[in-house]
Amino acid sequence: MSPRDKKKADQQLALRDVAIGTGATGTRIETDSMGSIEVPATHYWGAQTQRSLIHFSIGDDHMPKAVYHAYGYVKKAAAVVNHAAGRLDTARKDAIVQAADETISGRLDGQFPLYVWQTGSGTQSNMNVNEVLANRASQLLGGELGTRSPVHPNDHVNMGQSSNDTFPTAMHIATLLKVRGDTLLQVRALADAIMAKAERWVDVVKTGRTHLQDATPLTVGQEWSGWAVQVRQAADRLEHALSGMYDLAAGGTAVGTGLNAPSGFAEEIAAELAELTGEPLRTAPSKFAVQGSLDAMVAVSAGLRSIAVAVMKVANDMRWLASGPRAGLHELKLPANEPGSSIMPGKVNPTQQEAMIMVCLQVLGEDGIVAAAGAQGNFELNAMRPIIISNVLHCATILGDASDKLRLYSVEGTELDRDQIDRFVGASLMLVTALSPVIGYDKASAIAHKADDEGTTLREAAMASGVDADQFDRIVNPKSMVGDPQRDVALSISSSVRPRQ
Amino acid sequence: MSPRDKKKADQQLALRDVAIGTGATGTRIETDSMGSIEVPATHYWGAQTQRSLIHFSIGDDHMPKAVYHAYGYVKKAAAVVNHAAGRLDTARKDAIVQAADETISGRLDGQFPLYVWQTGSGTQSNMNVNEVLANRASQLLGGELGTRSPVHPNDHVNMGQSSNDTFPTAMHIATLLKVRGDTLLQVRALADAIMAKAERWVDVVKTGRTHLQDATPLTVGQEWSGWAVQVRQAADRLEHALSGMYDLAAGGTAVGTGLNAPSGFAEEIAAELAELTGEPLRTAPSKFAVQGSLDAMVAVSAGLRSIAVAVMKVANDMRWLASGPRAGLHELKLPANEPGSSIMPGKVNPTQQEAMIMVCLQVLGEDGIVAAAGAQGNFELNAMRPIIISNVLHCATILGDASDKLRLYSVEGTELDRDQIDRFVGASLMLVTALSPVIGYDKASAIAHKADDEGTTLREAAMASGVDADQFDRIVNPKSMVGDPQRDVALSISSSVRPRQ
Amino acid sequence: MSPRDKKKADQQLALRDVAIGTGATGTRIETDSMGSIEVPATHYWGAQTQRSLIHFSIGDDHMPKAVYHAYGYVKKAAAVVNHAAGRLDTARKDAIVQAADETISGRLDGQFPLYVWQTGSGTQSNMNVNEVLANRASQLLGGELGTRSPVHPNDHVNMGQSSNDTFPTAMHIATLLKVRGDTLLQVRALADAIMAKAERWVDVVKTGRTHLQDATPLTVGQEWSGWAVQVRQAADRLEHALSGMYDLAAGGTAVGTGLNAPSGFAEEIAAELAELTGEPLRTAPSKFAVQGSLDAMVAVSAGLRSIAVAVMKVANDMRWLASGPRAGLHELKLPANEPGSSIMPGKVNPTQQEAMIMVCLQVLGEDGIVAAAGAQGNFELNAMRPIIISNVLHCATILGDASDKLRLYSVEGTELDRDQIDRFVGASLMLVTALSPVIGYDKASAIAHKADDEGTTLREAAMASGVDADQFDRIVNPKSMVGDPQRDVALSISSSVRPRQ
Amino acid sequence: MSPRDKKKADQQLALRDVAIGTGATGTRIETDSMGSIEVPATHYWGAQTQRSLIHFSIGDDHMPKAVYHAYGYVKKAAAVVNHAAGRLDTARKDAIVQAADETISGRLDGQFPLYVWQTGSGTQSNMNVNEVLANRASQLLGGELGTRSPVHPNDHVNMGQSSNDTFPTAMHIATLLKVRGDTLLQVRALADAIMAKAERWVDVVKTGRTHLQDATPLTVGQEWSGWAVQVRQAADRLEHALSGMYDLAAGGTAVGTGLNAPSGFAEEIAAELAELTGEPLRTAPSKFAVQGSLDAMVAVSAGLRSIAVAVMKVANDMRWLASGPRAGLHELKLPANEPGSSIMPGKVNPTQQEAMIMVCLQVLGEDGIVAAAGAQGNFELNAMRPIIISNVLHCATILGDASDKLRLYSVEGTELDRDQIDRFVGASLMLVTALSPVIGYDKASAIAHKADDEGTTLREAAMASGVDADQFDRIVNPKSMVGDPQRDVALSISSSVRPRQ
Repeated sequence: MSPRDKKKADQQLALRDVAIGTGATGTRIETDSMGSIEVPATHYWGAQTQRSLIHFSIGDDHMPKAVYHAYGYVKKAAAVVNHAAGRLDTARKDAIVQAADETISGRLDGQFPLYVWQTGSGTQSNMNVNEVLANRASQLLGGELGTRSPVHPNDHVNMGQSSNDTFPTAMHIATLLKVRGDTLLQVRALADAIMAKAERWVDVVKTGRTHLQDATPLTVGQEWSGWAVQVRQAADRLEHALSGMYDLAAGGTAVGTGLNAPSGFAEEIAAELAELTGEPLRTAPSKFAVQGSLDAMVAVSAGLRSIAVAVMKVANDMRWLASGPRAGLHELKLPANEPGSSIMPGKVNPTQQEAMIMVCLQVLGEDGIVAAAGAQGNFELNAMRPIIISNVLHCATILGDASDKLRLYSVEGTELDRDQIDRFVGASLMLVTALSPVIGYDKASAIAHKADDEGTTLREAAMASGVDADQFDRIVNPKSMVGDPQRDVALSISSSVRPRQ
Repeated sequence: MSPRDKKKADQQLALRDVAIGTGATGTRIETDSMGSIEVPATHYWGAQTQRSLIHFSIGDDHMPKAVYHAYGYVKKAAAVVNHAAGRLDTARKDAIVQAADETISGRLDGQFPLYVWQTGSGTQSNMNVNEVLANRASQLLGGELGTRSPVHPNDHVNMGQSSNDTFPTAMHIATLLKVRGDTLLQVRALADAIMAKAERWVDVVKTGRTHLQDATPLTVGQEWSGWAVQVRQAADRLEHALSGMYDLAAGGTAVGTGLNAPSGFAEEIAAELAELTGEPLRTAPSKFAVQGSLDAMVAVSAGLRSIAVAVMKVANDMRWLASGPRAGLHELKLPANEPGSSIMPGKVNPTQQEAMIMVCLQVLGEDGIVAAAGAQGNFELNAMRPIIISNVLHCATILGDASDKLRLYSVEGTELDRDQIDRFVGASLMLVTALSPVIGYDKASAIAHKADDEGTTLREAAMASGVDADQFDRIVNPKSMVGDPQRDVALSISSSVRPRQ
Repeated sequence: MSPRDKKKADQQLALRDVAIGTGATGTRIETDSMGSIEVPATHYWGAQTQRSLIHFSIGDDHMPKAVYHAYGYVKKAAAVVNHAAGRLDTARKDAIVQAADETISGRLDGQFPLYVWQTGSGTQSNMNVNEVLANRASQLLGGELGTRSPVHPNDHVNMGQSSNDTFPTAMHIATLLKVRGDTLLQVRALADAIMAKAERWVDVVKTGRTHLQDATPLTVGQEWSGWAVQVRQAADRLEHALSGMYDLAAGGTAVGTGLNAPSGFAEEIAAELAELTGEPLRTAPSKFAVQGSLDAMVAVSAGLRSIAVAVMKVANDMRWLASGPRAGLHELKLPANEPGSSIMPGKVNPTQQEAMIMVCLQVLGEDGIVAAAGAQGNFELNAMRPIIISNVLHCATILGDASDKLRLYSVEGTELDRDQIDRFVGASLMLVTALSPVIGYDKASAIAHKADDEGTTLREAAMASGVDADQFDRIVNPKSMVGDPQRDVALSISSSVRPRQ
Repeated sequence: MSPRDKKKADQQLALRDVAIGTGATGTRIETDSMGSIEVPATHYWGAQTQRSLIHFSIGDDHMPKAVYHAYGYVKKAAAVVNHAAGRLDTARKDAIVQAADETISGRLDGQFPLYVWQTGSGTQSNMNVNEVLANRASQLLGGELGTRSPVHPNDHVNMGQSSNDTFPTAMHIATLLKVRGDTLLQVRALADAIMAKAERWVDVVKTGRTHLQDATPLTVGQEWSGWAVQVRQAADRLEHALSGMYDLAAGGTAVGTGLNAPSGFAEEIAAELAELTGEPLRTAPSKFAVQGSLDAMVAVSAGLRSIAVAVMKVANDMRWLASGPRAGLHELKLPANEPGSSIMPGKVNPTQQEAMIMVCLQVLGEDGIVAAAGAQGNFELNAMRPIIISNVLHCATILGDASDKLRLYSVEGTELDRDQIDRFVGASLMLVTALSPVIGYDKASAIAHKADDEGTTLREAAMASGVDADQFDRIVNPKSMVGDPQRDVALSISSSVRPRQ
């Protein structure tokens, strides 16, 4: 086609109302710079997607759909910016935007079949998006699938872009949307549920434990408030790490110099993406840093890890405190959601806690993978992108979901075994600590050892060691040994209200 | 039903020919010791499976199907053994065996929907199997789904068993079948392909590199033979670790004492499983060790890791040696399977190597998860089973598949850039090493520095330093500096033929 | 002694001028609540230190001296606060303060012999400090070593404190002082040195590389500015993580309730410690969180890791870019600090980079240890303190020192091999990218493949493919393909000036 | 000196009796191929050692002395082999051998000051050995330090060798000697001590626990036998991994081709080293594999990890079983080795277990470092040797020492709290499991729930549910529910006697 004919043809392009679907069966020929190849006619993808499917069918790990949804924003923003600058005509822009919106909404999810284990730049997934959007947009403009016309995957959908700058951009957006939209909410709801218990049980005195050994008393509310603060602070750390996601690589193109992207493109696409997502996105001050590394992703992963570290402690404490019912600590009664054993009738196990602990161990390990991959950049590219985004999104998902389940099916339904708690407090030898400032550490120590050796109460041993009974009863009072639990819990609540970023 | 009526009813049970499928829609009521619950009537699973689906829908990680296939063997073997000892009538045995065979074959895969993140003992997956097999077997015997009759999930399918002993048994079998049946074959095929190249290029002299810096020469065949030996030895390490899988927990029941399992059950079920799988399975000498720990699984994971460590080196070397084509080492020409860039035309990237490196990093990380989880046992149970089996099978799968792809789409098609290789050898300064025994280390060193500083050839610098030209040409001959590559490669081949276990 | 006599004796206590040293040889008897034990008379430590030495001589890992220096601040602050409130007389306060100052200064370093692998609370190190300070202070007041009089390790030096609250307090202070005082300075000096090179080489055009393969050009300055930004942002992340160190546990005593600590003690000791250290320290809002967990330490470790991730990339890039000299990339000439080989004369290796990469791998691994240990808290105590502080301080030390060495002995002395850089740019096929917007991606791709296949220049292949020579020369100009390096570097510098916290 | 004069001088060389020590102070000039440099005259080391000290003073991590001891064997063996072949005269051989013996014995430990963080090949440590041995040997032959005569570090001490082949050889030897000579003995002694307790308490019935929840009973002996088997099997895994240490790189020289090493040198030095060490050492079939990788070291590290995984479970179980004394499980009474708290009098903590758990976590993390570093080889060299050997030897040391301490100060002195054990067994609801085969799972389950809800004994609930009292007492008998503990323990002992390799 002559340039003039082409221009004329372009002017006649118009968006049509075509439902999603190719309406074809069998195969169709698609081409790329390496030649032509058969693809399933049932789908929109093109030659490069097909090549990747052949060469990289490794296991069953697929690039997370969230990456494609985020890529939908990127392609839409690029089309809008290119159109505004006169580089893309209105019809093609509209068609690409519609296809991008369909991508964002998940309605094209079935068009993105590629695996995690592919090229390290994510180029194949970028091309998958380019091909699907080009074919879908061409279809919307009356074109024929496989002709790369009127919408070309590279020249139009990928205009001004490279995988090297758009894939990390999509990673940042996918991470922001997932973590802000799900994970943080789920984790904070767990923390809130824990804190609600702390308030409810603020005055229930129990035996403290350090080194697993009986220690001085505290209240159940104090204990749970510590858990809640841990989880909230971990969530705050994660939220802070999200700020690294605001710096976008888009506009850097192949190596960060912005070659083939028009002047201003980086700033404009960042502004458009900020508008579309509602996040304070901006162009990264150094494209070389954000394309050559994935350091900000590693920081988000550390944020996710901080939640695993905190929640694992809570889950462990809960299952130990619920251990028994007859031969364990059993200060807590967890909800019995299912039979615990296929052989032992009536057994109830701390399964929500076990699931959560496994999730936390998985997150700790995958975080290590992210860090190791983050350190493997070479020159102008960190080619470890698929492994990093898949692990980060995976961790964000399982941490969030497990938090939901732990809250809903265990924390909220947990009750105290007050008899057991009281029994332990009554029997504790570490109440002797209160005597220490009065009779000295060494004598107090002797009393505790005596009671332990002889199996008596602390009071009996103290008496036998010459402590005055009245003095003992006045000083060794568990309720007066826990400080000010009301104030502690109140302070925990007020201090852990997160600052909005 | 009176015992006598029950016995009579039992005697009338007969296996029918019923295709897989419930033939129902909507929901059906199933019950367990916690009460009744609605389950989808389209499926065979029962109350405990349904409870788990509700309480543990965490992320999208499902218990690998291989675990259920392995469980099929366990349930079949138990039924056979129980029948042989007169504890299970023939009809129920036959029905359970048929349902187990259907499970093994994968035809019931859709009946096992549970998540990885569940109870740490795997009880819910065991009950899923028990429920599906009980319902399917009941169906085969004319019973009604949901009645737990004539085949009961606990009393018949789980007879003599506990999750605590059968789940690790299924883990061992699943691991053996996957690693022996796939991973080792795939990895060894990769090693063979590398060794074939070593033989082909046994005499091509190239520059060696240590610290990334030019070193004394070797042949391409020598270099590749080193890679092949690495991979083969890693495979041997993995195979050796499999021997830990032979010791089965079955028969230990709840805590390893074998309570409620008949005398001899442990030995008999192990023998039956050995027969069914063709693996040298046996009952573990200490049930307490194999139920309280998963140490043998951790050892298999270390075996998988050994492959990742070896193959990552190969993949890295390949991509660096292929770097360029103009501004890199480019001794190797990798097959161009797909366009490498969405923006840079004509770019070809070492994508198979990148995928493999990511796989290796994932395996290294997941191995760490397995070890950490392996260390988390408490008392009579390591309740980290789902996380361990899912990571081990995942690693076995992606390592194997990636080995296949790397072999097929990169190693086999790799060619040498002989011009580049020759050019490097000709220019190398490290050939001076051959002079060292003759003129001394210090003088040889001065010559190399002189050539480097002045940008001359080594020969020129040697001449200028008073070395005799004839002597130089006689001694500094790359071909004579590589030892005996034919022997080296032959030795590598013969030495790395694995001993059959 | 009667209380009255005791009071009188106390009033006569006066600080003497006694040089450090026991002036004794052989052994002396020390006692604690478990009885008496011989200790070396040459040292100040007491019974519990000695017991720990016997029971925990594991390997050669000693509790870092920085922990004791930090503990010096804690003991000093406690004495000051207790004295101000009238709980400790002036003479004892003065003596403890002097001993604490001697501890802070390092002059008592030889008195702290304990191992890392001890009680998980650090109690033995706290008691080591208490015993040494009590004996030293007693000595200063004319007392006899071993009598625990006039200064008692528990009743005076440890007054109002527990290991459970003071050890994490000392951990926070030690971490702050080390990281702020050394690590951040060392790492930022490295970043500055890299940025200085970026400015110097801002206009030197070189071949970019992605996937290790030739890509479009950028300048050396752009490349180095990316490295500098990575390192600076990592340092900023570490600095931000330090803010978690401000929250102190002191005052929480055994389980966080503050039992046996006077009212206000927590706030007062935090204020005193802030004064002594110049850091914005404050009492933690939840003592239960900071004693039951070490989450803030895990966050600092993640900050250290962020530096390892960034610097490892820089070190790897440098050694690859210096590879050769004849058979590698060799765009960089690293300083030759030492002979590289015991057998190959004249060999120079990237040893500083190798040391740094090993340091980074060590830090990545130890960070994983810190996280795993951080997740292992139980109830009112995370008893993984020694392992966490030793790994964190170790990482802070080796990262900082290695940054110093890398800067001083490699980065600052690195020069460019301009001939090699120019040669690569001239030969690059990826310059074709600039043609892509003009002649289309597919045609540009064909030209690059043609040049590659035929071994010609890009220009020749373009000509042969019908591209106009003038057009080629106008468009395919490396200098015009790098964007605006001056602006990029300037932006990098301005954007990465860290905000003061 | 003319060759003839030189030969004459050589013939007059004779070994003298000179005590270790330079007899000098201040500094002396040493030279290498880069020029001259001042070194402390008090020591034997030369120029390259000094350069490394300047350039690599990073932290406080020194190359383990065990590496130098192993290097002593290598240098001795090389001298012997070179002498036997006529390449080294008797006097120089004798002098080198004496210096090597002094190195092996540790008497020259002070001469090896270098850091772990140095060149990745270990060249600097090899040169440190070469320099020290050359100077010491020269001294023994009447030469002057610093003249490199009559014994030259490269030409004589390093004859036929490279760092690239000798450093991994020394790594293998150091690892073998440490692990076989210490670690395995220490770990197996721990296992034996545990097994002795298993035998002692073979018949003490206790409550089993799965998921931390009460389960069916077993005996203390059964439980401990499981621990012992775990530890023994882990030791067997480690021992098996040692077989990878037998393959030596020596003779491969710079890149594995054996350049500059005489024919047969590889086989001869391996034979000599086998003789000297008593280990079945042999020359590696592929030098390229053992120099380009450190895979066999990674396998040893996995062996060490297997011990950490097993022992961590034991230590955790012990500390939980000892928890209390009043508000915990407290089935075990651990020896009280030291006061547990600086504030809580009479507190005894499971400190040996805590130290061991920290050691295990450290080993798990350092093993990950070793694997990551093992995967970082490039071309003909894995330049991650110092980090790998330092971590492997460190883990071998702390695991062994901690095993010793745990055995000596905790396992051997542990006693049972029989009252507590009996109380738990009496109260357990899981004894209902024995009823399950008789009355069915569902009814048994209802009984257990009833007892739990109503706080009654199982017997009471069973009665109330219609179970016959006689039947109950006959079936629900803990002693009859534990199988055959005598046989189990005997089987554990016999099965875990390790096969000699």
